[in-house]
Amino acid sequence: MDIKELISNGVKLTEAQLDKLLPGEDVAPTTLHKAMRYSVFAGGKRIRPLLCLEAARAVCGDTTPALNAACALEVLHTYTLIHDDLPSMDNDDLRRGRPTNHKVFGEGVAILAGDALLTEAFAMLAQVPANELYNVRDYVAELAYQTGSRTLVGGQVLDLEGEGRSLSVDELRAIHNGKTTALIMAAVRLGGMAAAASPEQLAALSTYGRCLGLAFQIIDDILDITSTPEVLGKSIGKDAAVAKATYPALVGMDAARAEAKALTEEGRAALDVFPAERRAALLAISDYLLNRDY
Amino acid sequence: MDIKELISNGVKLTEAQLDKLLPGEDVAPTTLHKAMRYSVFAGGKRIRPLLCLEAARAVCGDTTPALNAACALEVLHTYTLIHDDLPSMDNDDLRRGRPTNHKVFGEGVAILAGDALLTEAFAMLAQVPANELYNVRDYVAELAYQTGSRTLVGGQVLDLEGEGRSLSVDELRAIHNGKTTALIMAAVRLGGMAAAASPEQLAALSTYGRCLGLAFQIIDDILDITSTPEVLGKSIGKDAAVAKATYPALVGMDAARAEAKALTEEGRAALDVFPAERRAALLAISDYLLNRDY
Repeated sequence: MDIKELISNGVKLTEAQLDKLLPGEDVAPTTLHKAMRYSVFAGGKRIRPLLCLEAARAVCGDTTPALNAACALEVLHTYTLIHDDLPSMDNDDLRRGRPTNHKVFGEGVAILAGDALLTEAFAMLAQVPANELYNVRDYVAELAYQTGSRTLVGGQVLDLEGEGRSLSVDELRAIHNGKTTALIMAAVRLGGMAAAASPEQLAALSTYGRCLGLAFQIIDDILDITSTPEVLGKSIGKDAAVAKATYPALVGMDAARAEAKALTEEGRAALDVFPAERRAALLAISDYLLNRDY
Repeated sequence: MDIKELISNGVKLTEAQLDKLLPGEDVAPTTLHKAMRYSVFAGGKRIRPLLCLEAARAVCGDTTPALNAACALEVLHTYTLIHDDLPSMDNDDLRRGRPTNHKVFGEGVAILAGDALLTEAFAMLAQVPANELYNVRDYVAELAYQTGSRTLVGGQVLDLEGEGRSLSVDELRAIHNGKTTALIMAAVRLGGMAAAASPEQLAALSTYGRCLGLAFQIIDDILDITSTPEVLGKSIGKDAAVAKATYPALVGMDAARAEAKALTEEGRAALDVFPAERRAALLAISDYLLNRDY
């Protein structure tokens, strides 16, 4: 399994469909549609859509049923980045090596572009085909739960409230669960649901998603300390600069690395319910995320 | 048909269900849930839920199937108010006689409370029962369309872009269509769909919603000039102060009043497809909205 080819294929599939589903830059109001597309088509490895597509493949051998769900996850992820970067949140000027949305379009339009992308995510989800086990009601309930006030948005609030004070490991884990794990859970679960996963298969994907999500955020924290802005495409040392708690700061760098590795192993083991050839891609993604340097 | 009783019953029904559906203030993160509830339970006549409930009654004689849709509309409306009031948008300190959300909870939490309410709207919509003609796929597609980048959010962008320059009547109408009419359309259409409206009935509700929405915004513009802050519960003369185009300013006060009246008449006439006793509430609401002084 060549991870570069896997990612490159996922990017192509997802971006072609996103281009079809999102209103064009010439559609009124053009400023808004330009702002939405500016952030959606800003590059990136499209890990969440890839996880969604490959979760579907693990279940049914085909990624097609999950394509619109994959797009929904990416536009939802993009809305969270736009809003997180705002001056009243993380106040970031740079994202994926480019000026952040509000730096280009102004704060008002950036907030509205995020709102429109969040809305668009549910419109895309309404276009995911129903099957004998799941329908749009289930997809919408799943995405709304994983990204709502108790989870993703809640994690961002905890993050805001935690700035400048010391956090316990449990508090930090609650932030990570909300800000990162919830959407990765949604990605693999929606991919599985779109492919009519059995309860046992969906439980396996959930374990994989939970472990991968936590490991993903721990690695992010490590890279914020050890990487360079050139490699990462964003400011580094920023967490430390604003006295933001990170995993390595709380438990030490070695323990953080060990935990990311253990979580990745636990996630991989959960995939044993799938045939070897169908779980290969999800295994490759988890290895790649553990060992990435950006 | 006593309009006060009608509104009061709608408020009771909607608020009781909203209280059940929204996470309590003691649910973590408590700041976020307090902020969401602060704006959702800020009073108000709950006109959009009422329109949704009464559209269902017009179709099937019962409001029950539309109750969760009515709640979805109200939390979606609340999210737009919170975001519209932000400093980078309309920069309002006062809403329904109380400090705006960001004045109480800060800008970051206010943006996130809006995001969470928008997400919650779709969660509530996923709980609207399917019937022989419509299911959650249709409800979600409808709400996402009426409140997305081409419509509600788009209208807010046009409004931002229009500030401080003179607008044509067509441009102002495009803003009104997006900012006000789209959600009122969604209210009556979702109520009708939840009650299994026939295509003819849904078309009638759409005409009623379109006319009522435009009339509603024209009256709002008139009241911004003629009312007092005490009666209105918000700042007045604000549109003129920021050189915002209004209907009366563009076409004159008499023509604006005449247009609101004509639109209301057109909307009422569309309801002729429903039995007299079932359309009485929608007729009463349109009269009330035309003649209101706040």
